[in-house]
Amino acid sequence: MPQGGNTGYCGGATPFDGERQILLSLSRMNRIREIDPVNLTMTVDAGMVLARVHSAAQEHGLMFPLSLGAEGSCQIGGVLSTNAGGVAVLRYGNARDLVLGIEAVLPGGEVLSELKGLRKDNSGYDLKSLLVGAEGTLGVITAAVLKLVPLSRSRQTGWLAVPTPAAACTVLRRMQRYSGERVISAEYISRPSLELVLEFVPGTRDPLDRPWPHYLLFEVAGGDLESRLRRTVEEIFQAGLEAREILDGMLAGSGRQREALWRLRETIPEAERRAGGSVKHDISVSVSAIPKFMDEAERCLSKLGPCRLSVIGHLGDGNLHYNLRPPPGSELAEFRAGPAPQMTAAVHDLAMRLGGSFSAEHGIGVLKRDELHRYASPATLKAMRALKAALDPKGIMNPGKVLGADRPA
Amino acid sequence: MPQGGNTGYCGGATPFDGERQILLSLSRMNRIREIDPVNLTMTVDAGMVLARVHSAAQEHGLMFPLSLGAEGSCQIGGVLSTNAGGVAVLRYGNARDLVLGIEAVLPGGEVLSELKGLRKDNSGYDLKSLLVGAEGTLGVITAAVLKLVPLSRSRQTGWLAVPTPAAACTVLRRMQRYSGERVISAEYISRPSLELVLEFVPGTRDPLDRPWPHYLLFEVAGGDLESRLRRTVEEIFQAGLEAREILDGMLAGSGRQREALWRLRETIPEAERRAGGSVKHDISVSVSAIPKFMDEAERCLSKLGPCRLSVIGHLGDGNLHYNLRPPPGSELAEFRAGPAPQMTAAVHDLAMRLGGSFSAEHGIGVLKRDELHRYASPATLKAMRALKAALDPKGIMNPGKVLGADRPA
Repeated sequence: MPQGGNTGYCGGATPFDGERQILLSLSRMNRIREIDPVNLTMTVDAGMVLARVHSAAQEHGLMFPLSLGAEGSCQIGGVLSTNAGGVAVLRYGNARDLVLGIEAVLPGGEVLSELKGLRKDNSGYDLKSLLVGAEGTLGVITAAVLKLVPLSRSRQTGWLAVPTPAAACTVLRRMQRYSGERVISAEYISRPSLELVLEFVPGTRDPLDRPWPHYLLFEVAGGDLESRLRRTVEEIFQAGLEAREILDGMLAGSGRQREALWRLRETIPEAERRAGGSVKHDISVSVSAIPKFMDEAERCLSKLGPCRLSVIGHLGDGNLHYNLRPPPGSELAEFRAGPAPQMTAAVHDLAMRLGGSFSAEHGIGVLKRDELHRYASPATLKAMRALKAALDPKGIMNPGKVLGADRPA
Repeated sequence: MPQGGNTGYCGGATPFDGERQILLSLSRMNRIREIDPVNLTMTVDAGMVLARVHSAAQEHGLMFPLSLGAEGSCQIGGVLSTNAGGVAVLRYGNARDLVLGIEAVLPGGEVLSELKGLRKDNSGYDLKSLLVGAEGTLGVITAAVLKLVPLSRSRQTGWLAVPTPAAACTVLRRMQRYSGERVISAEYISRPSLELVLEFVPGTRDPLDRPWPHYLLFEVAGGDLESRLRRTVEEIFQAGLEAREILDGMLAGSGRQREALWRLRETIPEAERRAGGSVKHDISVSVSAIPKFMDEAERCLSKLGPCRLSVIGHLGDGNLHYNLRPPPGSELAEFRAGPAPQMTAAVHDLAMRLGGSFSAEHGIGVLKRDELHRYASPATLKAMRALKAALDPKGIMNPGKVLGADRPA
């Protein structure tokens, strides 16, 4: 089994207990093979850490627009094998959308060498997209050609309070229209999540004067002068205030303020941990179904027992990390042994009933194998099994992961 | 074999001569199943004509950003099965990038029903990307959830003369940087292609006062006011003139002028036909390799005999339609029977040698099966055959196409 930075949430890169397994680390395959600033591509080994890709691109006035919490340690091989998402998917897509070519070792030992930096290539089946997101079960990605984009000439970051999740969706759509789709991020943050950060992360403070139920952290980037982009963002802000879709808000006036706003979002997992931990979910639904999901989820959960919510998410992707914390006075272990599994089933059932996914960006690994078998249609499972058997007839690639529900975790 | 609008260039939807085959038309499956303006998605049957998708989106202030010459008759099923490209790939990607979910009938008769409008879903292998671009050889796509984008609030279209293909690339990159990546199209047009249009298409005229060797037709769209976007475009124009990367140019001042510019691009295939026809190629290379490709191709061809070039292409995608016309006084049939096949081999060899593709957007069908077997690596062919055998063990789906080089055309 291949292992990258070992930062996954679903155990896809973790060996099983008590079994003899081969763990394949690509950490020492960590070179940049080529940067082509005219083609806007970078060819890198799979063991390269994501943050190093970022800094190498920046040296050329370019950017690799995949950004996520673990970027300081996660590796490109893992990023691709899990089709990682993050905070800029709204504008740039998932990892699969950001890779033009791959090199991979297939289960039979052949090297699939398709390291082409082509924007268009219709000369055969899309093997690349199949290997990306397969969590190492169909082969080992050893290198990739990544898409780069020009560094933005201007950037505005803001923090908005909105009355409802539905208002957050409306604000986002107006923002996209007014800005010519230059919204990079639109992160939803619930009040309880912000409160955890304010309580457990030193040096943080509420950007607004009074508490509000729902927040939107957004970033708009552009090619314009900073002053022009700011005027556009102020127009959006004004229109939202007038329509009462925005209750209050602020724009970062400096790089430091911008970092402080992002810190409020990025330290939420850490704050949850310090507060005793949480049971995490990574669901997605249509953006239009987010208000309904939030409504119904709260109703379903209340029937199953007490818990505290910490809901954050990538609003424009319809992706919510709908996290549950034990009620006051209760420990996480107790919560896990008690109502948590039923609550997880309720959250996943609801997402699926609304046409969504039980795993938006974290993948299957071991943690969600049972869910895959419960929710995927027989046709989907049959096709997946056929592909796995076709490419890996001996079942030697990351055995037991994704489809392998027959094995203990 | 499934057949859509029957507009393909490679014979993927055309039955073989003298064989009993079942032709499956989905023309009567042509309904819109759902439009979700908040999720920015449209769910449509596979038989729906692309132009109807465009008009339905427009009624909601939205746009389906896949645009190509055949849009008046090609159908969504074919658009997806060939992973169609077109003139807005630079900004929005190919068909594969614009579909969020599909419904397909698999060779075993199962219905793969994944009509989800999700921006993020990592709950299994990417079956969708595999079926898209498989030209009906792995199953029949019956419906899809398409990504929509907000209609642009402003749009500027221009026609530039540039000294070299390399200058065209530099101009494009500056344009992307200055406009915050709002360049929708960047179409390269060679002087001979323009001349064909001016001669054979009534009512056309050269937008500039004197002839130049290379042109770039571009379109930049945005969320800004028209006047602001125009100012940005004028800045780009000015910078290009000063750097001598732009020789001359004009911006469309009205909708009519815009249409006239696009007509010069879109009627090139028709003009080639009226002038006696051409041998078409659809290659791609890295954008940075375009100047080298153009240089070397001309040199290689000159050794093989006389021909006239008509080179057009989607510059930002590194995709050239490098078309060859018979020399003066010679007919197309004669040219085809003479040096054309060797010239095609030389064009494809060169693209492959530069790390490119012999089929950028038109697919394989029948026309390029031999090329696929010549150029694809053994590992790629083996993986493709394994996938075909896994999903279609009886070989009943579009038999003889793509991989099936054993059959006569």
